[in-house]
Amino acid sequence: MALIVISRAMDPDCFADGLRQLDGGLDVRVWPDAGNMDDIRYALVWKPKDGLLASFPKLEIIFSMGAGVDHVLSDTQLPDVPLVRFVDPNLTMRMTEYVCLNVLLHHRRTLDYLDLQREKTWQNWSQQPGANDVRVGVMGLGVLGLDAADKLRLLGYQVAGWSRSQKDVDGITCFSGADGLKPFLARTDILVCLLPHTPDTGGFLNAELLASLAQDGPLPGPVLINAGRGRVQVEADILAALDSGMLWAASLDVFEKEPLPATSPLWSHPRVVVTPHNASISDDRAVCKYVIDQIARHEDGKSLQNVVDLKRGY
Amino acid sequence: MALIVISRAMDPDCFADGLRQLDGGLDVRVWPDAGNMDDIRYALVWKPKDGLLASFPKLEIIFSMGAGVDHVLSDTQLPDVPLVRFVDPNLTMRMTEYVCLNVLLHHRRTLDYLDLQREKTWQNWSQQPGANDVRVGVMGLGVLGLDAADKLRLLGYQVAGWSRSQKDVDGITCFSGADGLKPFLARTDILVCLLPHTPDTGGFLNAELLASLAQDGPLPGPVLINAGRGRVQVEADILAALDSGMLWAASLDVFEKEPLPATSPLWSHPRVVVTPHNASISDDRAVCKYVIDQIARHEDGKSLQNVVDLKRGY
Repeated sequence: MALIVISRAMDPDCFADGLRQLDGGLDVRVWPDAGNMDDIRYALVWKPKDGLLASFPKLEIIFSMGAGVDHVLSDTQLPDVPLVRFVDPNLTMRMTEYVCLNVLLHHRRTLDYLDLQREKTWQNWSQQPGANDVRVGVMGLGVLGLDAADKLRLLGYQVAGWSRSQKDVDGITCFSGADGLKPFLARTDILVCLLPHTPDTGGFLNAELLASLAQDGPLPGPVLINAGRGRVQVEADILAALDSGMLWAASLDVFEKEPLPATSPLWSHPRVVVTPHNASISDDRAVCKYVIDQIARHEDGKSLQNVVDLKRGY
Repeated sequence: MALIVISRAMDPDCFADGLRQLDGGLDVRVWPDAGNMDDIRYALVWKPKDGLLASFPKLEIIFSMGAGVDHVLSDTQLPDVPLVRFVDPNLTMRMTEYVCLNVLLHHRRTLDYLDLQREKTWQNWSQQPGANDVRVGVMGLGVLGLDAADKLRLLGYQVAGWSRSQKDVDGITCFSGADGLKPFLARTDILVCLLPHTPDTGGFLNAELLASLAQDGPLPGPVLINAGRGRVQVEADILAALDSGMLWAASLDVFEKEPLPATSPLWSHPRVVVTPHNASISDDRAVCKYVIDQIARHEDGKSLQNVVDLKRGY
């Protein structure tokens, strides 16, 4: 009985060592050194090659190294075993750091003040609104979205959330489904997208959606922050909205293609903050502990946590 | 019986109009059109000229337009009447916005990522610590410092505070006085200064203090954030500490001389974020409401709130 670590983008040995340190009895292997394929019961994976997971006949659980699982669900021959997402207070805290930083950064006009600093110009925008005048909308009210929404509320923002199914959260105005989308966008000055990539959300952040954001807000225009998945956004539409003034600014941590190609106009757009998909990077020690805990639950006959609903896609 | 508005830096008519709207019965005048000096009972001031306040023989209360009162206390002929500071939830919220933004900005290496963006380089600092690995120290635990410390704690930071007299605050490790200073600094990765300018705090942020910050933290070096008063800092020492690497970065909203002279090397230092003393600007409507409320208390024979202790200087 063994666990295999499969990853190209993230260092698999780092995870293998972490798992061995936590459970000396666990037989941990690193792809492509799988040994006897029949031994493999568990797989900890990041972007596995199409069809690879199907080659382990006795696989019982697939663990994703991150909160997102689109990198696994895209496998056309995915075996019919539970797929477990990584959910962790550390991952949540880091995403909330990113969201609060980028909401504050645009609300407080940091890009403009950095420009003024370069020009050595002492100047105020005296009508700067307080957080309580700014309406933030969070799309996706899972663990990450709920925590970010809660912290933004504590900083003083007017926070609303939108999700597929209706939620009920203290202090957050909740919208849901197709009917709730337009009213949610119409009251949103800063849109924070934490949606997963699923068949329903591909290309969701498009021209029509951006045109529906509040145009009467206290900032010079609406702001988009996307730290969910790149394929949820239409980058050509975002650039056009920025250039037409329909969108005032954007912070993007994820992209249609990653790494973001050097030819993308997003890199040099003066109203865009680009980060290299690092809003919330799984801490390898936390991933290892989580996997060991879930395997112990499984072997004790308890139910696994955070199993992905394949129909919903998250 | 009249109130006089005295201000050069901020538009006095804006305050006068606001006061008249809230209390049509109040006789509001704007310096230098004071009329009969004997009529003036109240003064709402920002940086009044030395000796001017002493020229109103029947003055009963001086109101500061901001939280700081050093601009009034520097008057060598200050009349012996209560001086009331402006304290307001809006002012507190805005200072907390500034503090959280700048702590997150340095913790999350935003200046470095903006540089990488300019170079179109997709690169991570994979060992980026989480907020729970970063120790923030807040100097000055008045209304502003306590709120900022509380919100930083909720974002996950390890927060300590330092103040003149010992405080006891849930979730915040409190240090105080001369004895508490070194241990407070030794555990601090990001120092947030919200101290007022008093005879005790002038030049407090100097080479010796900066050298006492933690040098073993999770960031490349310690960070200084000052949104208190410019004369609390020694800018030559801050620049030397930045250039020697003793200090990794700084966000400064206040300066020894304001506006910051174009000749200051702070403007163009790659590790410094300069803002034009706008961390928390008093909202004129909130100031007017506060003054009207305090006058009503005074005329009802109730005690005034937030009266400055002239010996402490705040």
